[in-house]
Amino acid sequence: DLTPSMEDYLEMIIRLSDQQGYTRVNRIAESLNVKPASVSKMIQKLSQKSYLKYEKYGMVHLTAKGQQIGEYLLERHHILEELLKTIGARGDLQREVERIEHHISYDNFMILSDFLDFLKDNPEILRQFHQYKQNKK
Amino acid sequence: DLTPSMEDYLEMIIRLSDQQGYTRVNRIAESLNVKPASVSKMIQKLSQKSYLKYEKYGMVHLTAKGQQIGEYLLERHHILEELLKTIGARGDLQREVERIEHHISYDNFMILSDFLDFLKDNPEILRQFHQYKQNKK
Ligand SMILES: [Mn+2]
Ligand SMILES: [Mn+2]
Repeated sequence: DLTPSMEDYLEMIIRLSDQQGYTRVNRIAESLNVKPASVSKMIQKLSQKSYLKYEKYGMVHLTAKGQQIGEYLLERHHILEELLKTIGARGDLQREVERIEHHISYDNFMILSDFLDFLKDNPEILRQFHQYKQNKK
Repeated sequence: DLTPSMEDYLEMIIRLSDQQGYTRVNRIAESLNVKPASVSKMIQKLSQKSYLKYEKYGMVHLTAKGQQIGEYLLERHHILEELLKTIGARGDLQREVERIEHHISYDNFMILSDFLDFLKDNPEILRQFHQYKQNKK
């Protein structure tokens, strides 16, 4: 039930939250490069869906539910970026991952995550792939 | 310089084009589940960019440039879907690929394509991955 934009906010909020699990509207606005008014609007929506609590002085606290999904979204981003990097993808991977991450189902993400673990545990496969590409040229 | 929507149109037009390289506005509208008026609008834009020619009786002809990019877009779709399927992804892959394909750079697509060839040429790696997942459970 989360839109790509909501996912981006939750991912950023958890990035910005310290150990106590909170950040501020202004920091979110700066980090996502949007106006504080847009952040406030989205914060209201996410608060209605019980992902966070909006408190005085612009403080934003994730709920347990928000913390859980935020951690998943952040991990999904890191793992997709690392998987692409691992097989040799280059360029603005941060940006590419920002755009694809929302469209991968949970089940398929788990498979991609297992596949990354598999490649990390079997480094000879990447050496073999590198050799394969050389031979193709 | 192509938007995701333009890419979807070119991909569909080449799917629908027969050996003579043409299709019709109505068939495009049906296949993309949009109104003929929307198709006409997009056809105009793509014609201005020299990807196709719009002729009488609603006939749409790809130019050599349109044919070339259309073939790339179709191949990109097929390869991304096959790569996901190959490592075990399931569910509505058609839909997932529709949403991610536009955001992968040409260079990184080439790497993913090489990686798929590599996996197809080395089927023991997929067996090893399958075993790896079993052992994890
Ligand atoms: Mn992200
Ligand atoms: Mn497609």
